[in-house]
Amino acid sequence: MTGIRENETRTDLPDAADAGLYFIGICRTPFATRADCPRQGRRDGPVCRLEILPRWAGALDGIEAFAELDVLYWLDQSRRDLVTQSPKSDGAVRGTFSLRSPVRPNPIGLARVALIRRENAVLHVRGLDCIDGTPLLDIKPERCAYTPLAPEKAADRA
Amino acid sequence: MTGIRENETRTDLPDAADAGLYFIGICRTPFATRADCPRQGRRDGPVCRLEILPRWAGALDGIEAFAELDVLYWLDQSRRDLVTQSPKSDGAVRGTFSLRSPVRPNPIGLARVALIRRENAVLHVRGLDCIDGTPLLDIKPERCAYTPLAPEKAADRA
Repeated sequence: MTGIRENETRTDLPDAADAGLYFIGICRTPFATRADCPRQGRRDGPVCRLEILPRWAGALDGIEAFAELDVLYWLDQSRRDLVTQSPKSDGAVRGTFSLRSPVRPNPIGLARVALIRRENAVLHVRGLDCIDGTPLLDIKPERCAYTPLAPEKAADRA
Repeated sequence: MTGIRENETRTDLPDAADAGLYFIGICRTPFATRADCPRQGRRDGPVCRLEILPRWAGALDGIEAFAELDVLYWLDQSRRDLVTQSPKSDGAVRGTFSLRSPVRPNPIGLARVALIRRENAVLHVRGLDCIDGTPLLDIKPERCAYTPLAPEKAADRA
């Protein structure tokens, strides 16, 4: 890993992971490099595609009912060892958890996007901010936009 | 893994994980079992604690400036193989990605919480919905509540 900036601090990462992720698909965006990415996704940004792996395509059933989705993705180009950071544009040093920087122990990106349409195993959305090819982790319907689908209290299941 | 309900579908999970997570701490809530958990966290719910591991304590620096946080946690009691699900309270079958059920290929929980106060490596928050002892993955400041900390476009760093 390359050097860090003045006043930044890092930690040695644990020897082993505590849990494992399965990529469920891929984000297709017009942003080829980190420099091309907006700081955060915008609802008037370009239409991007969430391409779901065949294994999980059926898990999209019913998603057309939602106008907004929370999308989680894996920022696989990010270093994970910084405890405090000094973003280039700002001389101050802040703790990683007080920044939305992609550099974090678990580099999970989170975007609330507008669902434009579904086309089989592909969702067309606006509001992503990540590099083309970023692995997808999860898609959740945004519950605040609608009446909850189920009563307030009901047993879920492990 | 125990059986599934009528009309639910599952998939065999991949043989290996695609990426690894490091737990950064633990959620302390008054919810001892799944049955005790609310369907979603409420801002007038009980005060819960996010206890950060010593390795990452410094990453909280500056977080006091935020009133709202996005918290990501690992729902380690959830099965991961269901493609479609039929929640108990609802006879319909829906795709996993059109539900906010904890049962999903990557069982990452997401809550937007109110930050009450910080006490060293512990954050007191309202709005969590998870079982006591749930592993923590990430804490992000909620950018919409404030003016962004940095200009719209600035290079982050891998």
